[in-house]
Amino acid sequence: MADFSFTEDSELQKLNAQVLEEPEEFVHWEKLVRAAESQENGLNRNSSPQAIAATRDVYDRFLARFPLFFGYWKKYADLEFTIAGPEAAEMIYERGIASIGISVDLWTNYCSFKLDTTHDVDVIRDLFDRAKSSAGLDFLAHPFWDKYLEFAERLEAHDVVFEILGEIIHIPLHQFARYFERYRTLAANRPISELASENVIGGFRNELAGSMNQMTEAQLDQELRARLDQHHLEIFHRTQDETMKRWDYEQEVKRPYYHVTELDDSQLVNWRKYLDFEESKGQYNRIKFLYERCLVTAANYDEFWFRYARWMLAQGPSKQEEVRNIYQRASSVFVPIARPSIRLYYAQFEESRGYPSTANDVYEAILSILPNHLETIVSFANFHRRQYGVQAAIETLKKHIDSPQTSTSICGALVSEWSRLVWEISGQADEARAIYQANKQAYLDCKPFWLNWLSFEVKQPASGQKQQLEHYQHVKAVYDAICSTTTLSGRTVQDVTSFYLVYLKEHGGPEAMQEFMRRDCEVNGPLSAQKGLQDRFAAPAGEDDGAMVGYPGTDLHESIFAGGKGGVTMYKQAADGVGQGGANGLANTGMSTY
Amino acid sequence: MADFSFTEDSELQKLNAQVLEEPEEFVHWEKLVRAAESQENGLNRNSSPQAIAATRDVYDRFLARFPLFFGYWKKYADLEFTIAGPEAAEMIYERGIASIGISVDLWTNYCSFKLDTTHDVDVIRDLFDRAKSSAGLDFLAHPFWDKYLEFAERLEAHDVVFEILGEIIHIPLHQFARYFERYRTLAANRPISELASENVIGGFRNELAGSMNQMTEAQLDQELRARLDQHHLEIFHRTQDETMKRWDYEQEVKRPYYHVTELDDSQLVNWRKYLDFEESKGQYNRIKFLYERCLVTAANYDEFWFRYARWMLAQGPSKQEEVRNIYQRASSVFVPIARPSIRLYYAQFEESRGYPSTANDVYEAILSILPNHLETIVSFANFHRRQYGVQAAIETLKKHIDSPQTSTSICGALVSEWSRLVWEISGQADEARAIYQANKQAYLDCKPFWLNWLSFEVKQPASGQKQQLEHYQHVKAVYDAICSTTTLSGRTVQDVTSFYLVYLKEHGGPEAMQEFMRRDCEVNGPLSAQKGLQDRFAAPAGEDDGAMVGYPGTDLHESIFAGGKGGVTMYKQAADGVGQGGANGLANTGMSTY
Repeated sequence: MADFSFTEDSELQKLNAQVLEEPEEFVHWEKLVRAAESQENGLNRNSSPQAIAATRDVYDRFLARFPLFFGYWKKYADLEFTIAGPEAAEMIYERGIASIGISVDLWTNYCSFKLDTTHDVDVIRDLFDRAKSSAGLDFLAHPFWDKYLEFAERLEAHDVVFEILGEIIHIPLHQFARYFERYRTLAANRPISELASENVIGGFRNELAGSMNQMTEAQLDQELRARLDQHHLEIFHRTQDETMKRWDYEQEVKRPYYHVTELDDSQLVNWRKYLDFEESKGQYNRIKFLYERCLVTAANYDEFWFRYARWMLAQGPSKQEEVRNIYQRASSVFVPIARPSIRLYYAQFEESRGYPSTANDVYEAILSILPNHLETIVSFANFHRRQYGVQAAIETLKKHIDSPQTSTSICGALVSEWSRLVWEISGQADEARAIYQANKQAYLDCKPFWLNWLSFEVKQPASGQKQQLEHYQHVKAVYDAICSTTTLSGRTVQDVTSFYLVYLKEHGGPEAMQEFMRRDCEVNGPLSAQKGLQDRFAAPAGEDDGAMVGYPGTDLHESIFAGGKGGVTMYKQAADGVGQGGANGLANTGMSTY
Repeated sequence: MADFSFTEDSELQKLNAQVLEEPEEFVHWEKLVRAAESQENGLNRNSSPQAIAATRDVYDRFLARFPLFFGYWKKYADLEFTIAGPEAAEMIYERGIASIGISVDLWTNYCSFKLDTTHDVDVIRDLFDRAKSSAGLDFLAHPFWDKYLEFAERLEAHDVVFEILGEIIHIPLHQFARYFERYRTLAANRPISELASENVIGGFRNELAGSMNQMTEAQLDQELRARLDQHHLEIFHRTQDETMKRWDYEQEVKRPYYHVTELDDSQLVNWRKYLDFEESKGQYNRIKFLYERCLVTAANYDEFWFRYARWMLAQGPSKQEEVRNIYQRASSVFVPIARPSIRLYYAQFEESRGYPSTANDVYEAILSILPNHLETIVSFANFHRRQYGVQAAIETLKKHIDSPQTSTSICGALVSEWSRLVWEISGQADEARAIYQANKQAYLDCKPFWLNWLSFEVKQPASGQKQQLEHYQHVKAVYDAICSTTTLSGRTVQDVTSFYLVYLKEHGGPEAMQEFMRRDCEVNGPLSAQKGLQDRFAAPAGEDDGAMVGYPGTDLHESIFAGGKGGVTMYKQAADGVGQGGANGLANTGMSTY
């Protein structure tokens, strides 16, 4: 924990406090980092140990929460270089590219750093290779490729330069054409064996086999080179084609970096289409790279994590570890806990791979933050059922029902799930009913409890008249309880009634329509026809769709009256004196039957 | 059938043909009526019998379809008067007020007509009484009341005039005040006994009993009259109050008449509120009158017919005949057959009253016009079940399934209802399953068939491992059939899959999550991951939400290329010459692993 208590800089302490209070607010972090770095007029190896430690801690915490801000990895590495030297900086770079492995920027900086701090060509080359594998496919990877080529040029390793270019010309890049120009220029002076694969060269040699006798060595060479040049042109066209096809998608990517702010819909649409396109090409490495790029930009959008995980799963059994990695990153770092579905899928994935204890941990992790997340509790219970049997599931549910953390409405839903297990898995209908009966007083405002109970009763099998009658009595009892004892909203009662009316039509006997018409009238009719449901219709202020709410009346418009519009002449003064009188209407005059 | 073949007027024949072709188009009727009346420069008793008969027939047919156009009843009565005399005209008036009994206009005209054509005061008075009961409550009934008063004045029956006024002053009317003025003026000269009920007068006499000794007869008279005058003022205030409360609702009724055109939402909202208000006052006659007015304006809106029927039903057993009348009018005349629900409710009402044969007729009437209305067929089947047993219901369903009129998709739904009856009512699960099995090839595009079958399998009870395994096999078999044999849309398959995934979670065993992850990927993943579902996703033209549809790619933008944007310099001519080459991407170069 960064501790700025050593300093008298109250600004720094204030910013740190802000961050501790609202750690999800990026802006606070930004300010804190800047302020930390500016301590003591800029930190260096002579700065106070406390200032250094505090700043390192700020970076560590910040980048643990926002690992995709490659710019800050850079700044951190620079800082470490200043304070502690190249080994320390290298560690930061390694952490950085482990956090955001597709960043052309970060890799390029890392390679530059390596170039500046070591003379070991093999070490440098290894790093460039790693960078190439990680970020070389990026449409805008040219700064990296240029640095790589520069490195090879400095060593005057023209064969390496040519080899590197030989890879680049196959990659759709924003600046693909200039690499081709250079390749083609160099090709003129490279040995033929370097200009294509053995197969291709061999193929051309075969073509020329017939005319070999008529040609000199030099002519043969020229002829081969001409064909290879044509071959290179074909590569060029293909790469150009692939580049052009991606051009619009790339142009549309307005924000290629991670940020906490939302993406426009047009951006999301573009990514979906771009991924569709790349997938249609069927090249695993390119597709995976594009997903990784997408998930830097759209890191907080679980839509793309789900898509990535599903795509990877479809790539076959050898990719299971990749799938795990995707789910882990999504669950623990990137997708906000407010959207826990991906974590549930992760748990299900681990269960499907035969690791129930890992799945168990994932469920518990979600519940430790969201103890009242119904879907998670129910999923967790069914996980127990699948792996350890129905009793284990029931124990899980009971544990949550009994926990003081669980809200009453969630408890009601859990009780109905408990009953469902007893009925659907253990086949004990009476016991399932008993669970509902025992709990009905506790959950008078819990919609799932009552809907599920009613649904349970309706789903019970019944054949023959006696069973049909019992069936009806059970269903009716629950429906009556809903209408007369619960505190569910008026609309819920109307929905439940619709369900019950269908039941009467589909299961009722010869007298059923009498009850049907009565219930329909009592719940669907105008307010004056509704018996006992009036209290439920408390309308929010401003609701004005004409639906019956209470008993509205107009205001008496004195203005009409005073202005003589009502035709009142003789009685005006009298009316002014008497006021509005009794608003009892005609009913109390006893004088009219209207 | 109006036959204009006797005439050479081709316009008339053409208009008649138009009406026969599009009888629901009000405009055609309007033109035809006008043209019919103008035959022979205006019809009269000397016109040709064919012209007269044809015109009568036009009116009869028109008013049978549009019985609420009171203006046309008037014209028809006038025509009959011209052609055939007062008895004929009277018959038309009687038909008219039987069709639209609340029309102030029509009643007033009828009464005028009576005044003009008879001297029998009792007959006239009876008519005025009927008119008063039918239309006197209307907020704008003053033209009628004026005519009634005029009639009494002509007879110099001042007591009758005062009596009539004595009724009017209790009714909220637009012009209530002037009737009061008149009443009060006349009251000064009426005997005390006419000024209030016996109770009220007696009450005042009692109040004055003490001071009776000190007063002369004249003084007593004056004192009583003063109190009665005050009593009248109170009546005035109450009526004024009631009038004011209704003022805004009445003002908002922009279209108080029937027409074929739609009503604005604001009109509908106003009627709902106005009915709520009147119902809150609790006076049966006033409420009923308002419903009748509403249902002249909103005659084609089943919302208000439903509301009226439900309200009337709530008024108690003595009002059952009224309920019947409401349903009959709604069903046979006013609510378009395109909205058959009210007819279904009518059938259910008759069943509830113990008239299954009438209910039967109603169902058959609907089906004669809408033979493929699924809800009606299923309701009809269940009606048979309730009244005559489950075999009768199944026979009904089979009759429709076998009928050539019934479309395939409806048949599929009916088969699933048949199966439901066998399972839920007769308790024969195996037989119910056999019905589905026997029919599965016939309904590969019928969504209800498959959803209901899947649902049926899931709902089967199962306890113990053996049964659970069989249960799973049955459910899985249906799900597999849906995925691999049906022609249901992609979205339907996704929905069904969601249902199946929940089943796996809630019922599956320890290995269930493997199947879960696989199915989820195959149906919810990107297109490239979907196996065998690709054909289902035929996107309509223009759909552009980025959802995967087929394999999209960008067009090659020659403009980019030609404009040199791609950085192409050296190769432009070569490219022009070679063209776009093979668009096979990198996969076929054999030269890159990217």
